[in-house]
Parts: sequence; C-alpha cells; structure tokens
Amino acid sequence: MQVSVLAGGVGGARMADGFARVMPPEDLAVIVNTGDDFEWHGLLVCPDLDTVMYTLAGIANPQTGWGIVGDTWRALEMLGRYGGETWFWIGDGDLATHVYRTFLWRQGMRLSEITDRLRRALGVPVAIWPMSDDPVRTIVDTEEGRLPFQEYFVRRGCAPRVRGFIWEGMERAQLSPEARAALEAADLVVIAPSNPYVSIGPILALPGVLELLERRRVVAVSPILGGYALKGPAAKMMAELGEVPSALSVARRYRDFLDGFVLDRVDAALAPAVEAMGIRPLVTDTVILDPPARARLAEEILQWVASWV
Amino acid sequence: MQVSVLAGGVGGARMADGFARVMPPEDLAVIVNTGDDFEWHGLLVCPDLDTVMYTLAGIANPQTGWGIVGDTWRALEMLGRYGGETWFWIGDGDLATHVYRTFLWRQGMRLSEITDRLRRALGVPVAIWPMSDDPVRTIVDTEEGRLPFQEYFVRRGCAPRVRGFIWEGMERAQLSPEARAALEAADLVVIAPSNPYVSIGPILALPGVLELLERRRVVAVSPILGGYALKGPAAKMMAELGEVPSALSVARRYRDFLDGFVLDRVDAALAPAVEAMGIRPLVTDTVILDPPARARLAEEILQWVASWV
Repeated sequence: MQVSVLAGGVGGARMADGFARVMPPEDLAVIVNTGDDFEWHGLLVCPDLDTVMYTLAGIANPQTGWGIVGDTWRALEMLGRYGGETWFWIGDGDLATHVYRTFLWRQGMRLSEITDRLRRALGVPVAIWPMSDDPVRTIVDTEEGRLPFQEYFVRRGCAPRVRGFIWEGMERAQLSPEARAALEAADLVVIAPSNPYVSIGPILALPGVLELLERRRVVAVSPILGGYALKGPAAKMMAELGEVPSALSVARRYRDFLDGFVLDRVDAALAPAVEAMGIRPLVTDTVILDPPARARLAEEILQWVASWV
Repeated sequence: MQVSVLAGGVGGARMADGFARVMPPEDLAVIVNTGDDFEWHGLLVCPDLDTVMYTLAGIANPQTGWGIVGDTWRALEMLGRYGGETWFWIGDGDLATHVYRTFLWRQGMRLSEITDRLRRALGVPVAIWPMSDDPVRTIVDTEEGRLPFQEYFVRRGCAPRVRGFIWEGMERAQLSPEARAALEAADLVVIAPSNPYVSIGPILALPGVLELLERRRVVAVSPILGGYALKGPAAKMMAELGEVPSALSVARRYRDFLDGFVLDRVDAALAPAVEAMGIRPLVTDTVILDPPARARLAEEILQWVASWV
C-alpha cells in the first residue's frame, strides 16, 4: 500500500515517523507544508521540512520536537552581538542546513530537489517533499494587524487574536511535481495531527489538491483532543475564528474528501457524530510522543484501512 | 600622530593590535587586504578582515591566530554530512560573521560600511577598513595551474610551486573611500609583517596607493626573519619566484616609498644594506606573538619615527 502523509511541523513529523517505522520506505512519502518558511538573515529557513527531516533522521531534539538534539548556540549568540534578530532559535548544526539549502537554492535548484538531497545525506530512506517549489508565505491576520507566520508564532507566541489567514504567493504556486506524483500513486493519504489552518491549510489550498484527495482514500488524525491541541495554537485559533475547539470541527473541515477520522479515546463520545457525517471513526490513543507510540498508531491505521471493504 | 597600518591576516592583525594598545583609537586605522576573500557556500568570507577584527576584539584564537577562541564546529560537521566542502575551517561563531556580513552585503551595503558595523558591535574602537569595496580575488599561478588563493593556501597547504599572481577584478577596483581618507590623513603608514605578495601586494596594486605612499612616511616591518617567514608561505614564495628569501628582498620590494624598515635582531647584519638603499633601519625584536610584545614593538616604532628630524 502506497501512503502519503500530509504534514506540518512537530505533530506531522511524529506521525510520519510512525509510518516510517512500520512500512517499506519506498511505499511512503511525506508532503510537507512550506507556508511557514521564511528568510532569516538572507537564509531560506523551512521549519516544517526540517522538523520532519530531523525527526525521520533520528536527530530531532526530543524535548522541543524541533531543532537538532544536543545542538549548540554559538552562532546565534554571535549574531546577537552583531545586532541580528535572535528571536527565532537556530542552533549551530541547524544553521548548516539553512546555509546549504540556500546555497543550492541560489544556484537554481528546486526546493524539492534540495530537500531530497538533504534527507538522503542524513540517511532518511523515506521521500520528503515540500508541498511546492514556489514560495508560499502564511500571513496571520490578527486583531493587531497582519503578521508573517513566524512573527505570530514564535516572536509573539501566538498571543494576538486571529481573524484569518492569507497565503502570499498561493495564486502563482503549484504542487511540487514530486508531491503530485506521490499523491497520484497513493492508495492512502493520511492527514497528520497538524494544525488544520496553518499546517494542512496551505497544502489543501494548492491548485488540484482537493480534487486529488477526493479521488483517493483519505484518513485524518485529529490534532484536537478533548477540546485542546496537544501542541500549538490550533484550539486557540478555532475559538478565535468562532469554531468549537473540537475534533468534530476538524472532521467537518475535511469532510468533503475524508473517508476515515482518528479520534483520541478522550473524544470517544464524538465517534457517532463523525459516523453521521459519513466518515468512519477510529477511536484510539493518539498521543504519539515517543517512537513506539507513533509506530503503534501508524500500524493501527494501516490495519484499520486494510480492513475496509 | 595619525597612523594607518596596512595588514594582511595573522601577522598584520598582531601588528595592528600592538598599535591599538599604545595609541588613542581615533588616531589609528587598519587597512586590510581583501584579495583572499572568497565565497563559501554562498557566503562572503573575508579571512583577513576577520582575523584583524577578532584580534582587536580580543576574541581571536591565540593558538591559530585566526578564528574565534573556544569556537565550536557543529555547523561544519553538519555541512560535511550534507556533502558540503569542509576544507576551510569555519567555526560556529565565525559562521555568524559570514552570515550577517552576507546578509548586509546582499542588501547593497558596502563592505567598508559592513566592516565598520561589525567591528563596532564587537567593541573594537579602532577603524578597520577593507582595502576596497570592489571584489578583488587573488589567483595564484602555480606549476599545477591557476588556483584561487584559499585553494592554494588552505586546501593545498601552499604546496604547488608559485610562478606569479593574478588579481582578478583589480582593473575595476578602487581603494575604499574610508581607506583613502585614512591614508590621506596618516602621518605614518606602517606596513605590517604580512606576506608582501598576497597580503600587501593587492593593497599596493590598487590605483593611487603607491602615489599616496610616496607622499608620506612609510615604515615596513619585515615578515622575514633569518630567511624564514614566521608564519605563512612568504619565504617559500620568494624562493620559487627566484628572489633571495631575506628581509632585504622585502625592503627592496618597498624601496620606492619606504622611509624606515624594521628588521629582527637575527638580521642585524642586513641593516647597513638597508641604509645603503636610503632607508632607515631599526633592528629589534619583531616576534610579536603575545600582546605585550606587540605593544612594545608598536611603541618602539612610534618613538623611532618621532625621533626622525
């Protein structure tokens, strides 16, 4: 069974890691949000791509979920002395990723090709594709004005109330050819427990993606448990946008193309409502902090989908 | 007395540091070779500027003379994993210098302005100016072909026999306006004990520099002691170019504009030959590894020149 995982940052990386642990690598592709990419002192930084790559390479920082385990901060400290901006934490090893990516990128290499080279160099046997080779930048429309995603997310700690999102560059952006090929070959698309607005939203907004999803089996794992997001501002955004912060709201958001929806045990009571939308529910443990839990959830999803008639 | 020091890397940095320790900072300017600058993974690296800046900031690695003391190598190690070139050693803190410089440079800031901002951020009270805002690249013509300077110097360890030098870009390069102003204001120009070919040579080759030097007091400190260079390939280059590796060859090279020449005690016997060229000799200790020795030599030169009638 060919599987494509749509992923954002930490939650997406953990789900992708689960599938990578239970599947032949050549049957798996991870398609990653690039809406939160940004330029940092002239370097192209792709936080979600790197979180997925570091996680699959086994070098992610287990405490934070992002960055490289045991990384040091000499460059950031020095940059601060020069008056550079230091609110986005980039470790010394991590910095090499951005330097090398930007080096290849300025030579005209596509982000998909660059990502493929980097993940192979780190020994990741699973394909990782950016959603697009074209720059898409998530702008968060807040009550304090429009903020580039990382300004909102990191610098402001998601404090300003959200009114909506703008995807800068989306009108000119295409799904990356490699991501398209992976989706077209997929027997199952898994939407990872990532933020529906700012992680999965940009991928779904690319031309042709909804049509592709409607034609294949799609399962989403809820990023909301008992009305809260395990990580990140998904539940807070929902409330601010006038939606009920609930797994059910996530299922509703994806209902046009969703065949199955994975709920945490704390939300077992919502399963009938999911079923009423014509979507199969799977109630299980969705907290996947450690690798065995990730692998267990991935295996469970694969067996569940395989059991469908 | 206004002093300008013409400097290359380690030797130049140490001499400049000596003057910085015994003079009011506003009376001193260091004009630094940029012929050994190069692009490293898309970043503009200026080894001589940085060696001078780190030395004057008191953060240079005292063992190597270049790089930052106590620097770490995470980024370089990671870059190696990606397949990047790692023969040029750039530490994590050092990398921040190149990232930030390149960031400002791509915004259109001149190298002189950038250098001024960086050295001030590091608390260096002395002006440091690149010789030029225009790119000049030293190419070493060797028996194994033409090599960009750092390929020859670092990667090949100066092994190939030298036949000559090419200064790429020199035909379009101008002395930086700030370096010109410093030289025009200088009562004394000191040529540091740097390589006459590849450190001082590019500065002297810039249009108008020789004319400027002819009109002011110029003192050079010999980088050759007893027929050897204390550091670097100066003596080896001399031999390969058919010159006698001797302090006297250095004095001869600069004779058109030289008023005084500082020789090490081991070369005391050469003083009469210097005098015969119409150049005042000063015989003293020229090994200036540690700060007190640097300050002592600088002070000695200042008093010597002040004693001239």
